[in-house]
Amino acid sequence: MERRSIVVLAGGFGGAKLAHGMALIADEAAIDLSVIVNTGDDLEVHGLSVSPDLDTVMYTLAGLANTDTGWGVRDETWSASAMLDGYGAPVWFRLGDRDLGTHIGRTKLLRDGRRLTDVTAALTHGLGIAARLLPMTDERVRTHIRTAEGWLDFQEWFVRRHHADPALEVRFEGIESAHPTPEVAEAIARADLIVFAPSNPFVSIGTILAVPGMLTALMAAEARIVAVSPIVGGAALRGPADQMFASLGGESSAAGVARHYLGLHPGLLDAIVIDRQDASSAPEIEALGLRVQVAQTVMTNDAERAELARAIVSEA
Amino acid sequence: MERRSIVVLAGGFGGAKLAHGMALIADEAAIDLSVIVNTGDDLEVHGLSVSPDLDTVMYTLAGLANTDTGWGVRDETWSASAMLDGYGAPVWFRLGDRDLGTHIGRTKLLRDGRRLTDVTAALTHGLGIAARLLPMTDERVRTHIRTAEGWLDFQEWFVRRHHADPALEVRFEGIESAHPTPEVAEAIARADLIVFAPSNPFVSIGTILAVPGMLTALMAAEARIVAVSPIVGGAALRGPADQMFASLGGESSAAGVARHYLGLHPGLLDAIVIDRQDASSAPEIEALGLRVQVAQTVMTNDAERAELARAIVSEA
Repeated sequence: MERRSIVVLAGGFGGAKLAHGMALIADEAAIDLSVIVNTGDDLEVHGLSVSPDLDTVMYTLAGLANTDTGWGVRDETWSASAMLDGYGAPVWFRLGDRDLGTHIGRTKLLRDGRRLTDVTAALTHGLGIAARLLPMTDERVRTHIRTAEGWLDFQEWFVRRHHADPALEVRFEGIESAHPTPEVAEAIARADLIVFAPSNPFVSIGTILAVPGMLTALMAAEARIVAVSPIVGGAALRGPADQMFASLGGESSAAGVARHYLGLHPGLLDAIVIDRQDASSAPEIEALGLRVQVAQTVMTNDAERAELARAIVSEA
Repeated sequence: MERRSIVVLAGGFGGAKLAHGMALIADEAAIDLSVIVNTGDDLEVHGLSVSPDLDTVMYTLAGLANTDTGWGVRDETWSASAMLDGYGAPVWFRLGDRDLGTHIGRTKLLRDGRRLTDVTAALTHGLGIAARLLPMTDERVRTHIRTAEGWLDFQEWFVRRHHADPALEVRFEGIESAHPTPEVAEAIARADLIVFAPSNPFVSIGTILAVPGMLTALMAAEARIVAVSPIVGGAALRGPADQMFASLGGESSAAGVARHYLGLHPGLLDAIVIDRQDASSAPEIEALGLRVQVAQTVMTNDAERAELARAIVSEA
């Protein structure tokens, strides 16, 4: 049986879980999995290049993720950070020792002149990950959030200030000169199915879609495009997506997610996967011209991750 | 009582112990302590700037040194290194997590454009160290060792190959364009006593003395200059100093140490401190024009470190 090429567009938490579900069923469903990951949240900490979404997906696929916190590595130690704190370095963006091993390794390879795509391939190879993890671009893009306090770096807003300030505007610094990598373009062109993970539509999937050429590549792809709604029962399972619908415009609902993506490009989606809790909104979404699939999208364990992946793949 | 300015020239292990002895008696003896440290052993590991001798002295003065290994930090964890190993990075130069915190912090400050002298001051301040730790120079100097296998980087020879290859020649790459820092020059000029720690005369003290202008500054200083022999009973207590006398020329003895330093500049030393085991060689050394002080130079605990420091200071 020829393997089906599935491409998942992902941010961190929700994207990692769905990507992991796909990886769990990769053999049974004969899936060749590529995950295109948001890099707009990337930052430098202590001079090291940190890619939070890539790492969350990578650690999750490697079985190393800290499922208690939703970020970082399990069985982590904090020795380096304690020293850095003693030296007066800012440690609000918490980096454990195992995690720092990744950032040290990544930074070294980047400084040696390698592309983030190649560096990511080396790291995932080291962790024994079969799926292809692809940064959305090799160029530097940085998400900024305008609040009542002014423009904030994404992680300043998200981590340091716990995304408490309403987001009034989003900008992706550097995006004008960014391009989808050849690997991203090829994965999209060859895909049999493209899935937008249940990640933040504004600052995870939205960032990926904002890379010049990305929407065109997606619209040109032969694959069906299916979005999984990150909004369940009107609320985001995690993170600020629901607040962002309120402050940036739109409706925090499965239908609102559908309208948001269609607003970026008419016909962008073929279908949307919504949670059972939202089954009653299916007619409203179908009226937008989308096929609606109802499934359990809340993934509390590996079995539920695999089950959601199986449902998406089987209906595609 | 006015404090006496004492300057110690130091490498790693022996230098750190004597510097610590001086720090232990700093209050009772009213000592203002500066330690000028070899940086020829510095290297980049995983793209991070590592200064092994500065760190050994720093950790020792901070009470953080791992006394079992003679390098690194006590109560260390190894999480980052295990990850880096998994990524295929070379980990033969072992760096624990607490230690990495130092290197990450140092590298960040250096990349921000600060001098190693200022970076070292920031780190020692963070660790609550009262003594002034001074890199011998802010310029990059790298010690290389010629062996039968060819030229090797210092740590390649010392750590990776356990200094098993006889050293046929030593060179300090970059030394021609290095200078003593203003802080080093001032410490030497203002010193009441200058002590060469029982560190390797070739690749620890020898490196410091090879910085252009260093010998001139020392000869111009009003302070007496006292060397502590790192050779006891004909052997180095640690490291390859005895083998280096054999392969580079000279005699592995207290008298050989005296002759080595006087060979760099006649009249460089005023006195030498030799171990009790070597008391019988005092006349041979006195014939070189040096005053000889016999003491217990082997320091197996803090009390013995303080005792040696006290002996040196009291006779000065």
